[in-house]
Amino acid sequence: QQELVRSARCRHGAPCRWGSQFNVPPSAQFVARPVGVCSMMKLPMQASAEGLDAAFIGVPLDTGTSNRPGARFGPRQIRAESVMVRRYNASTRAAPFESLQVADIGDVNVNLYNLPDSCRLIRESYQKIVASGCVPLTLGGDHTITYPILQVVAEKHGPVGLVHVDAHTDTGDRALGEKIYHGTPFRRCVEEGLLDCSRVVQIGIRGSSYDPDPYKYCRDQGFRVVPAEECWRKSLVPLMGEVRTQMGDKPVYISFDIDGLDPAYAPGTGTPEIAGLTPVQALEIIRGCKGLNIVGCDLVEVAPMYDVSGNTALLGANLLFEMLCVLPGVKTR
Amino acid sequence: QQELVRSARCRHGAPCRWGSQFNVPPSAQFVARPVGVCSMMKLPMQASAEGLDAAFIGVPLDTGTSNRPGARFGPRQIRAESVMVRRYNASTRAAPFESLQVADIGDVNVNLYNLPDSCRLIRESYQKIVASGCVPLTLGGDHTITYPILQVVAEKHGPVGLVHVDAHTDTGDRALGEKIYHGTPFRRCVEEGLLDCSRVVQIGIRGSSYDPDPYKYCRDQGFRVVPAEECWRKSLVPLMGEVRTQMGDKPVYISFDIDGLDPAYAPGTGTPEIAGLTPVQALEIIRGCKGLNIVGCDLVEVAPMYDVSGNTALLGANLLFEMLCVLPGVKTR
Amino acid sequence: QQELVRSARCRHGAPCRWGSQFNVPPSAQFVARPVGVCSMMKLPMQASAEGLDAAFIGVPLDTGTSNRPGARFGPRQIRAESVMVRRYNASTRAAPFESLQVADIGDVNVNLYNLPDSCRLIRESYQKIVASGCVPLTLGGDHTITYPILQVVAEKHGPVGLVHVDAHTDTGDRALGEKIYHGTPFRRCVEEGLLDCSRVVQIGIRGSSYDPDPYKYCRDQGFRVVPAEECWRKSLVPLMGEVRTQMGDKPVYISFDIDGLDPAYAPGTGTPEIAGLTPVQALEIIRGCKGLNIVGCDLVEVAPMYDVSGNTALLGANLLFEMLCVLPGVKTR
Amino acid sequence: QQELVRSARCRHGAPCRWGSQFNVPPSAQFVARPVGVCSMMKLPMQASAEGLDAAFIGVPLDTGTSNRPGARFGPRQIRAESVMVRRYNASTRAAPFESLQVADIGDVNVNLYNLPDSCRLIRESYQKIVASGCVPLTLGGDHTITYPILQVVAEKHGPVGLVHVDAHTDTGDRALGEKIYHGTPFRRCVEEGLLDCSRVVQIGIRGSSYDPDPYKYCRDQGFRVVPAEECWRKSLVPLMGEVRTQMGDKPVYISFDIDGLDPAYAPGTGTPEIAGLTPVQALEIIRGCKGLNIVGCDLVEVAPMYDVSGNTALLGANLLFEMLCVLPGVKTR
Amino acid sequence: QQELVRSARCRHGAPCRWGSQFNVPPSAQFVARPVGVCSMMKLPMQASAEGLDAAFIGVPLDTGTSNRPGARFGPRQIRAESVMVRRYNASTRAAPFESLQVADIGDVNVNLYNLPDSCRLIRESYQKIVASGCVPLTLGGDHTITYPILQVVAEKHGPVGLVHVDAHTDTGDRALGEKIYHGTPFRRCVEEGLLDCSRVVQIGIRGSSYDPDPYKYCRDQGFRVVPAEECWRKSLVPLMGEVRTQMGDKPVYISFDIDGLDPAYAPGTGTPEIAGLTPVQALEIIRGCKGLNIVGCDLVEVAPMYDVSGNTALLGANLLFEMLCVLPGVKTR
Amino acid sequence: QQELVRSARCRHGAPCRWGSQFNVPPSAQFVARPVGVCSMMKLPMQASAEGLDAAFIGVPLDTGTSNRPGARFGPRQIRAESVMVRRYNASTRAAPFESLQVADIGDVNVNLYNLPDSCRLIRESYQKIVASGCVPLTLGGDHTITYPILQVVAEKHGPVGLVHVDAHTDTGDRALGEKIYHGTPFRRCVEEGLLDCSRVVQIGIRGSSYDPDPYKYCRDQGFRVVPAEECWRKSLVPLMGEVRTQMGDKPVYISFDIDGLDPAYAPGTGTPEIAGLTPVQALEIIRGCKGLNIVGCDLVEVAPMYDVSGNTALLGANLLFEMLCVLPGVKTR
Repeated sequence: QQELVRSARCRHGAPCRWGSQFNVPPSAQFVARPVGVCSMMKLPMQASAEGLDAAFIGVPLDTGTSNRPGARFGPRQIRAESVMVRRYNASTRAAPFESLQVADIGDVNVNLYNLPDSCRLIRESYQKIVASGCVPLTLGGDHTITYPILQVVAEKHGPVGLVHVDAHTDTGDRALGEKIYHGTPFRRCVEEGLLDCSRVVQIGIRGSSYDPDPYKYCRDQGFRVVPAEECWRKSLVPLMGEVRTQMGDKPVYISFDIDGLDPAYAPGTGTPEIAGLTPVQALEIIRGCKGLNIVGCDLVEVAPMYDVSGNTALLGANLLFEMLCVLPGVKTR
Repeated sequence: QQELVRSARCRHGAPCRWGSQFNVPPSAQFVARPVGVCSMMKLPMQASAEGLDAAFIGVPLDTGTSNRPGARFGPRQIRAESVMVRRYNASTRAAPFESLQVADIGDVNVNLYNLPDSCRLIRESYQKIVASGCVPLTLGGDHTITYPILQVVAEKHGPVGLVHVDAHTDTGDRALGEKIYHGTPFRRCVEEGLLDCSRVVQIGIRGSSYDPDPYKYCRDQGFRVVPAEECWRKSLVPLMGEVRTQMGDKPVYISFDIDGLDPAYAPGTGTPEIAGLTPVQALEIIRGCKGLNIVGCDLVEVAPMYDVSGNTALLGANLLFEMLCVLPGVKTR
Repeated sequence: QQELVRSARCRHGAPCRWGSQFNVPPSAQFVARPVGVCSMMKLPMQASAEGLDAAFIGVPLDTGTSNRPGARFGPRQIRAESVMVRRYNASTRAAPFESLQVADIGDVNVNLYNLPDSCRLIRESYQKIVASGCVPLTLGGDHTITYPILQVVAEKHGPVGLVHVDAHTDTGDRALGEKIYHGTPFRRCVEEGLLDCSRVVQIGIRGSSYDPDPYKYCRDQGFRVVPAEECWRKSLVPLMGEVRTQMGDKPVYISFDIDGLDPAYAPGTGTPEIAGLTPVQALEIIRGCKGLNIVGCDLVEVAPMYDVSGNTALLGANLLFEMLCVLPGVKTR
Repeated sequence: QQELVRSARCRHGAPCRWGSQFNVPPSAQFVARPVGVCSMMKLPMQASAEGLDAAFIGVPLDTGTSNRPGARFGPRQIRAESVMVRRYNASTRAAPFESLQVADIGDVNVNLYNLPDSCRLIRESYQKIVASGCVPLTLGGDHTITYPILQVVAEKHGPVGLVHVDAHTDTGDRALGEKIYHGTPFRRCVEEGLLDCSRVVQIGIRGSSYDPDPYKYCRDQGFRVVPAEECWRKSLVPLMGEVRTQMGDKPVYISFDIDGLDPAYAPGTGTPEIAGLTPVQALEIIRGCKGLNIVGCDLVEVAPMYDVSGNTALLGANLLFEMLCVLPGVKTR
Repeated sequence: QQELVRSARCRHGAPCRWGSQFNVPPSAQFVARPVGVCSMMKLPMQASAEGLDAAFIGVPLDTGTSNRPGARFGPRQIRAESVMVRRYNASTRAAPFESLQVADIGDVNVNLYNLPDSCRLIRESYQKIVASGCVPLTLGGDHTITYPILQVVAEKHGPVGLVHVDAHTDTGDRALGEKIYHGTPFRRCVEEGLLDCSRVVQIGIRGSSYDPDPYKYCRDQGFRVVPAEECWRKSLVPLMGEVRTQMGDKPVYISFDIDGLDPAYAPGTGTPEIAGLTPVQALEIIRGCKGLNIVGCDLVEVAPMYDVSGNTALLGANLLFEMLCVLPGVKTR
Repeated sequence: QQELVRSARCRHGAPCRWGSQFNVPPSAQFVARPVGVCSMMKLPMQASAEGLDAAFIGVPLDTGTSNRPGARFGPRQIRAESVMVRRYNASTRAAPFESLQVADIGDVNVNLYNLPDSCRLIRESYQKIVASGCVPLTLGGDHTITYPILQVVAEKHGPVGLVHVDAHTDTGDRALGEKIYHGTPFRRCVEEGLLDCSRVVQIGIRGSSYDPDPYKYCRDQGFRVVPAEECWRKSLVPLMGEVRTQMGDKPVYISFDIDGLDPAYAPGTGTPEIAGLTPVQALEIIRGCKGLNIVGCDLVEVAPMYDVSGNTALLGANLLFEMLCVLPGVKTR
């Protein structure tokens, strides 16, 4: 009963550390799952990244979507479903909330009607976050958002390595006359020198194409492209060994488009492609990043309206937690 | 059996007039409802408005949406559900397909990533349509699109009267820093002199507001604002008598936002407001426009993903048919 | 642009008063609707009712539900959809955020597995809220929760008058052997003397019954029962005039079960009954309470899973806002 | 506790009369609503109509559907949602389970692949039911099924009066070359002399048409056609007074197509038409039949897949209960 | 035709054995799939387990659910979707309906508002079933129900072996202060000596945890815990060989939580965890139990509202049929 | 911009070849995905197969469905979701639109109320298509339709080899007394000598059965039956090597029932069976047909209402594109 009262006290975003020096998500043993204004994992919310080692932040933008919109509600739904995620990683024994100070710092305010201006707003918000030394874990939003985020990340860390999980390379040049939308972020990053191109891997790529050789651009830049076909029915543990070698100890960014997974697992997304990766492989990829010098992560393209069950968002919430678990400094127990 | 063959021949968009001088939608007595690539009412499709008295045209844009997106799929779903609409208006005895040459001329190609450019594309498409003397019946799309359409319409007809059904006045000045989105089209129209402000009526307006006196701007321009409260439980036949007097015989445009209706009837829309109009009142409004010099119509803001039944789109299809039935020159039988 | 920055600063629950002495919900003109961790109307969250005139509070419990469960997610979804509600009441000119200090104080932690213990937890939470002089506006939750809330309210104010909108009288004695579930709260309240029985009105009652004379108990207590049949197709403005007389100037509580409305308007609820009230009548009832000495309000039984559109929750959010607008001390503009 | 055991004993379809001479639906006060293999109102099931005054029977056929199929699952879903219906009619004080012996006698086995053969199967089943003197209350199924049912009913009672609620007259001659589908039952009935044409009323008719004068056939037969337009915003109590006079004391059949109601109330149906009747009017129609010599009833065209909430089926269950309540011999309390 | 009549006669739950000494589910070749009041596989219903070798029984309880409720409707939906399951197991050649007398004996009446009392009601019902020598195949309901069932089973058979498929070990001690909910049944069973702990295997366990070593309790009791990670991409045939050895010929109970499967296959459940088992593995587990001395089975946690397709319930129905097929005494053909 | 205009010109079904001699689907780089009246891949529509090497054609029939109907809307939804499919096959490098003249020739008009007559209508339509030398790629519709299609195909090519992917063999003799429905097409084909029985392979077969040895009929005819069990967790590349040998260079027809796949990937179908094939295996099967003398293909049983996401239809659209890519004469780049 004592504990019930204690958890009740934690519900409003006030520091909630359960006797620890770090913020800790409340347990469903003490706070009922449906209870609470949904921050990510019901972590305390704070207005800036000040004092944080890592922060969850939402970017509810979908103006860059080419087919089904709705990713603007990705952050809201991922937070809602994150009530199922608990503090320890039972598989890897990672204990992020005994290692890092983590909070939910809310959403970037975006300009739904103007993509370049949204990029500016994202950039300005992330400059403050990254400046404070905090690692951003982003809840998207469509994939456009990774472009301004990487502008900020590279500003601090120099050109970064990239672990990019996706059905699409997102290296188009333009569409409908525009250079900024969710099909082009990584070409823009290449052009601006934000990526260390020899340390880029794209995993899960597939689908029909406008070009007979659609991966040429990527390979010409030095990216490693791992089509879904090379992943089918395989463990990706060996691949990730190679990726760790490729990445070395220089800064790495993880950009995870939920459509990298097969639509059976992630129906709630806007541009699904058949015959994709499995959640098991997603875990192998993210857990395989342990030891890398990760400086930022995102999980994008969750469009909840196409998945009435909420399970695509639940998957997103779990994958974000797994990313948290492989950040530098996270201890195991 | 003869007729089954005949209808089979009509399925591909080739002229399909059933012995009439006009295009005629096929009957479900001869062509099964699920059959056919869905143009509006399964009318023949043609590439331009050439030779048409009226044309259905889609504008699948939702980049101007402030809350739930999805109206980009409005035209597709309205066409799909229009298989339920038959050629005669049993209530008014209107026989549009014995009076006018009507076709579906497809969709305007929009720039999903750039609202001003979409406006340009809409404007260019409509200039050709309107130039040919054809009355456009537009399947939206979010309400942003009415602005470029009215630019074209006013270019030909001068400032027009407006019968505007909506939950919102859509006369905001800007949002998120932008002057073009679905909350501002009619202020832009006023500023550009596209509206004959003394001949503007806005029906069904309601909802909470950012301003204590939210209709002031409209009334200052000379608009007649008819809040939903004034419509509750009433026939709108008397109102429409007054509206016909207000409009006179000068050109009138009908802009019908599906969220003018109560969300019970039209759940598939992005910015619903409670306590709205009924479909009965919608019919009274549109039928009450008979006799006016209508030069264009639109039905906007159908976002099908929020209505699994398809019935919001069905409602939209019926209301578009009703608009066709009150166009000048439509005979009754 | 200045304002965009300002709103960005408001997103984390820090006091956000826009230059006012009171908390003010952010405008979608400055903060995009999908942005933000959803508190009610995106109001600031705070840990206690301290300093507040009125507070939104959630009680995410549905263990008392007899048919379809899901009301535990009512508070979450009502908050999510409340992004459509703006600061002024355009119809009544009420300006609650220029009159009262209002915040969202989160959820009561409930015991999903034990109804009497949940009642205890609710009671304990509300004692603090009510003690501070704050008027609670509750987001339910099934109707069971009104019983412990009224225990606390009557403890402070003595037996209260009750404006009860519902399809059911909720005055059953027991079900499945239990005295506490969502069909019995008002019988429990009568037994404990929490209601001023001559000042109780139940509006919208209908449906088949286990008893040939199902309203006898209520009328025997002195309640006024207004069956839905007496409301059909009528304005409830005259009724509310009588209700105001009945209530006088003594304390009144408003308990609004969303199933009082017809399931067409509120499909997302657990025990729907056909042929119910309309949202127009709901507004007439609530607005008709202006001038009463309202000491608390609740909106219960929103079970979002049965309404994929989210519109039942949107309706709930609007009705809660309307209740806020009729609280004592709310000025008009 | 005693009662819990008693209800447990009733769950399997064994006679369950609660001390009464008649079958009585169990109360949710004693049997939890989700409990039980769903017969209509959880009434006992029996293999024939033997000994019954009235019987619920399902006809799960939708092969006659012209647009959206799914009414084959109408009976299953109506039974499932009927757990909300209780034994007394609180509005009319009807007590059918103190007046008549009622049971659920299951479904007619239909031939999904052959409409004429399904008609034969229905005919054969109903001959036994009607021969035993039992009044059938049918759960459809698409409207095709009323044709073979009326063949049987008229065989016993001679040409019957008909209270027909629907959006469509269902008096087409043929479609896709076929004379039997859900658009033709009442023309077939006329041709076979099953209807007493001067005692036929069709209420709620509306929608676009293939003919400029679509009601001519009906009126030529002597039917009274009451278009939806004549019902809008009106009480149908006066109409039903006239209908009772029209029907006199000769046998009457009630055929209620759920699409007679507006799609807001009944989204789960295959050929919806906008601007229809309300549930309030549906109650007025059915309750207005009290005193007539009703020899059979059906409720058709519930297609549950188009209404995720289950509420169309709930509406159907309630309307079937209301029909039961107006059968000859039902007492009030 | 003869057969159509014969099946029609079988529809009401009367003994229906098709010339066999055993009950046999009707074939869709003779009875249309949508036909019939849905018992499990349309088997005859009977009021007690008298004379049965095995019985399907529902326990529609979800008061023990910690996240999304709805499993109270599991039995209803599993029965509805079981119309797809036919009498023979084409893969294993099992012919349960030529080997055992099987029926559907309806649902246990539960107390939705009181978990301990529901446990009592379940216990009392199962005592009668198990006493009669019948093997219960339970349609859940949330996992709480396995606790009282095992009390009864162990009362008769002594401590049982357990094949437990699940995402969670369900060996928590308490939550929200309660010892009985769906996270604790197997700890309660251990405490009461209902399990032969060296013969317990838990398969598919995964997900984040409140404890750094969440399987310690289980392993301390002697359970074999097989995390999902050990199952990924593997045949479970070898594992089941080991399990058969572990179980020996002493009594075994199978408890299958549908959330053991990946949410892609079973979205309709309340506490899903990513990266779970596949239906192929589920079949390998159940078929791998052939030869064991199975004394009871359950399939729990199907919450249909989260899977609009009905396919989670269909999966549940098939898995229950597969359990029936491995019961002692089932012959192959 | 030039290109935007060009694509705008292509939107109405007029020849649209982008400078190529062949029809080419427009690119989402130039035409926004939501734009256009949905033909398959937005290809030009034409009224006959004249001049085409291959044609997409819909057969919107589901009267042959034994469980959940809805496949009548398969063609409409497959076309709608095909906006995601692009012109090149990135995996196989197939370039069908540089090799063949392809168009969408609309739907066959079917008789929804009469299966034999629908077969006649299909036969008559396909006779014209096949006579012109065009390879039909059919969008179903339920599996009944393959019977009349194969009548026409065999009329031209003699008995054909068959690559049949399905959960069911569809070789039943009759159901509900009928010889024509979706469970019998291949028995009818055998009886009429339309199949070269030694060149028939059925892949993915599974599920419970009405017969203890359900594959006997098939094997007696000489079919190769590959149960799903033999496919689990395996690459089907080796199998397809054997199949190519089996098929030789004589004519082959591909009939792909979407329920061959596991319901996790294809929930939108009427008679799902658990533990089926994966999309990866579907691709291996179809790509493994490269080199065969394919004379026709179909993709049947997509029933969109059971998959709110649209992803089953998307899967169907992709598989149809893959079939196009393996037609004789398709070059790679």
